[in-house]
Amino acid sequence: MGPNSLADERDRGFIIPIGGGEDRLKEMQIHRRFVELSGGENADIVVIPTASMLDKTGPDYNRIFSNLGAGKVEFLPISRRSDCENPEYSKMLDNATGIFITGGNQLRLSAILGGTFVATKIMQRNAEGVPVAGTSAGASIMSEHMVTGGQGNEPPAEGAVTLAPGIGLINTVIIDQHFTQRNRLGRLLTASSFNPSLIGLGIDEDTAAFIGPDNVLEVVGSGTVTMVDASRITHSSIWAAKPGEALSLLGLRLDILGEGCRYDLNTRIGFPPEDHLLVSTLPAPLS
Amino acid sequence: MGPNSLADERDRGFIIPIGGGEDRLKEMQIHRRFVELSGGENADIVVIPTASMLDKTGPDYNRIFSNLGAGKVEFLPISRRSDCENPEYSKMLDNATGIFITGGNQLRLSAILGGTFVATKIMQRNAEGVPVAGTSAGASIMSEHMVTGGQGNEPPAEGAVTLAPGIGLINTVIIDQHFTQRNRLGRLLTASSFNPSLIGLGIDEDTAAFIGPDNVLEVVGSGTVTMVDASRITHSSIWAAKPGEALSLLGLRLDILGEGCRYDLNTRIGFPPEDHLLVSTLPAPLS
Repeated sequence: MGPNSLADERDRGFIIPIGGGEDRLKEMQIHRRFVELSGGENADIVVIPTASMLDKTGPDYNRIFSNLGAGKVEFLPISRRSDCENPEYSKMLDNATGIFITGGNQLRLSAILGGTFVATKIMQRNAEGVPVAGTSAGASIMSEHMVTGGQGNEPPAEGAVTLAPGIGLINTVIIDQHFTQRNRLGRLLTASSFNPSLIGLGIDEDTAAFIGPDNVLEVVGSGTVTMVDASRITHSSIWAAKPGEALSLLGLRLDILGEGCRYDLNTRIGFPPEDHLLVSTLPAPLS
Repeated sequence: MGPNSLADERDRGFIIPIGGGEDRLKEMQIHRRFVELSGGENADIVVIPTASMLDKTGPDYNRIFSNLGAGKVEFLPISRRSDCENPEYSKMLDNATGIFITGGNQLRLSAILGGTFVATKIMQRNAEGVPVAGTSAGASIMSEHMVTGGQGNEPPAEGAVTLAPGIGLINTVIIDQHFTQRNRLGRLLTASSFNPSLIGLGIDEDTAAFIGPDNVLEVVGSGTVTMVDASRITHSSIWAAKPGEALSLLGLRLDILGEGCRYDLNTRIGFPPEDHLLVSTLPAPLS
């Protein structure tokens, strides 16, 4: 059975990790889609620029979303934990129809927002149907287990990745960004090897995964989204590897999703664009 | 059933693609293993430095293999097609117990050796049991379908890779080298998408795949060998992709092999080091 389309009835809101650099996209497809999901001219979008150290980040996104027809856009100038106690911000989040988390440093984001009502509100509002998008660091922090470090250009290896608790909008995936451009497959595979029950979600720049309430994601953008499913590996050397040693991981499943492709996080099956019929007549991939 | 060990009776000789930069390996494990397979103190190794433009490449490998105890080492100073007609070289190859193809430019290699008796002799001698090793460009040219170009750091995409005919010691794989270090998964996936019957073989620097006569390969070195099996993909967009467009490839199998791991090219199953028993009790990966 093919996944539902993005138009279907909503329960929790969309979760939209973006791989960074999305502003380079012609016609800003990703931002436009987010604005539409947030209500278009009736949208009340709240931007959280905390990951960034730049004062211009908040205003920049206000301009971007306004230009795309968002009815209302504001940002929360949160740069320290005490800022999170501002009751004004609480009201703004209560009224938000869309929440956007900018890029920067994901540890700054988790260290400042973690355990505050702002983080709680983001979870609540998303559970109530509000779409939450985040780019780069803002994408990483969405997952329960957040990638915080690890070199690119390296094979999977002991010590190749570091994790920290994210805000946990989604706990079935580990999200990585700038994925192909920074050659991060090795660190995502390492993260997947820790506990193969989690799906690795590697998002390229200028690309986003729109994760619907039905846990089916759809790809929008010029790059790819790489799904790493380690749940059926027959061998992993992670528990026995020496410091820095390259890992062996046998029996991985990989789906490379270009624009329009969908992936069902429940069944771990990828679907080509607009191709329910073909797929529904095929066996599940690799089974 | 687990694969045979490298010690088993020989039919054709080992085919040994190396990912480049192997001389950085402590104790030169890969070169030592090649010298042993070639007969050790009774070895008569012929080096083909044609891919390189450097005069020192031949003498350098003479020194390397001599220092590792090879009884005899010579190189063929072939830098143009007419050199290939030298009957002296024919005799040298007839007596060789090991053949080593250096790095450099694989198109230079195929353009100079292609269709000459030197290329034919390499095939013949390997069929008779002589191990043939090649590093970097020397590894690429071993496969029937040789990767000649394509940017790293890019997702799989239309036009992301260029192929040319190699010398064809092996026709079931497409070999790529400097694999993780130059982020070449995208171009190897693109190559695999052309015809999913071929297995993508991505070899890291300082790493080699020792492909035995039984078509079981074993990994030696400090990096990994990535096996891309596209034979069970449920969707590929390659035939419909616009110029430069990122590809969708659904249902790929990936095995990341660290040192000591083996992979059976016939069954497309990976095996952990020294672990026939465990594996033989498991279902085939992903089936």
